[in-house]
Amino acid sequence: MAQLKLSIVFGSGARIGPGKAALLESVRDTGSISAAARGMGMSYKRAWLLLDSMNQAFAEPVVTAASGGMRGGGAQLTSFGAELLERYRRMEEQAAALAADDLAALARMALPEAGPKI
Amino acid sequence: MAQLKLSIVFGSGARIGPGKAALLESVRDTGSISAAARGMGMSYKRAWLLLDSMNQAFAEPVVTAASGGMRGGGAQLTSFGAELLERYRRMEEQAAALAADDLAALARMALPEAGPKI
Repeated sequence: MAQLKLSIVFGSGARIGPGKAALLESVRDTGSISAAARGMGMSYKRAWLLLDSMNQAFAEPVVTAASGGMRGGGAQLTSFGAELLERYRRMEEQAAALAADDLAALARMALPEAGPKI
Repeated sequence: MAQLKLSIVFGSGARIGPGKAALLESVRDTGSISAAARGMGMSYKRAWLLLDSMNQAFAEPVVTAASGGMRGGGAQLTSFGAELLERYRRMEEQAAALAADDLAALARMALPEAGPKI
């Protein structure tokens, strides 16, 4: 088994990868930063920092507070946040579909246990 | 401007991404681990560890010493190492071609300077 992971690196150095995409999805589904953080096993602070870094990287925010500030009562994806997530998931699916044969060939050569991860 | 980065994650946890692919390429082109390391601005030790981790992750090594051990006189990609590199580059090109429109749309929204990188 082998999995493809996609990251987008912008000119500013900002990055969007599987972790941030999953966090956006979790905010969308739970309507809350703290529930999203809990669901992903990360601290509220970490989730907030990740979302804030995305909000700072684009001309439009990806997440807004429903009320009471980003710390307060709920949060939701903006339409740009939803678009970012949708584009990321589409790129991921297309890449995985196209890479399926190459991935399978490499997975057949991979040992079940490898050396140290670096 | 936005760039797509691909990583393959195997069942063992072993990963192949842009850095390891570039290192394989550099060993192929220079025939030497130390020259490859220099060309990539990394220490010999770091390059050796990265190559060794790839050698341990698959049923066949990716790099072999031409003579005198991996520390000694030159190194070259094995046929599997060349295959791994070729498959990685093909997946990368295909993904980038397919993702071009989505990437361009996101790059248009990206600010030239972002907040802290996380």
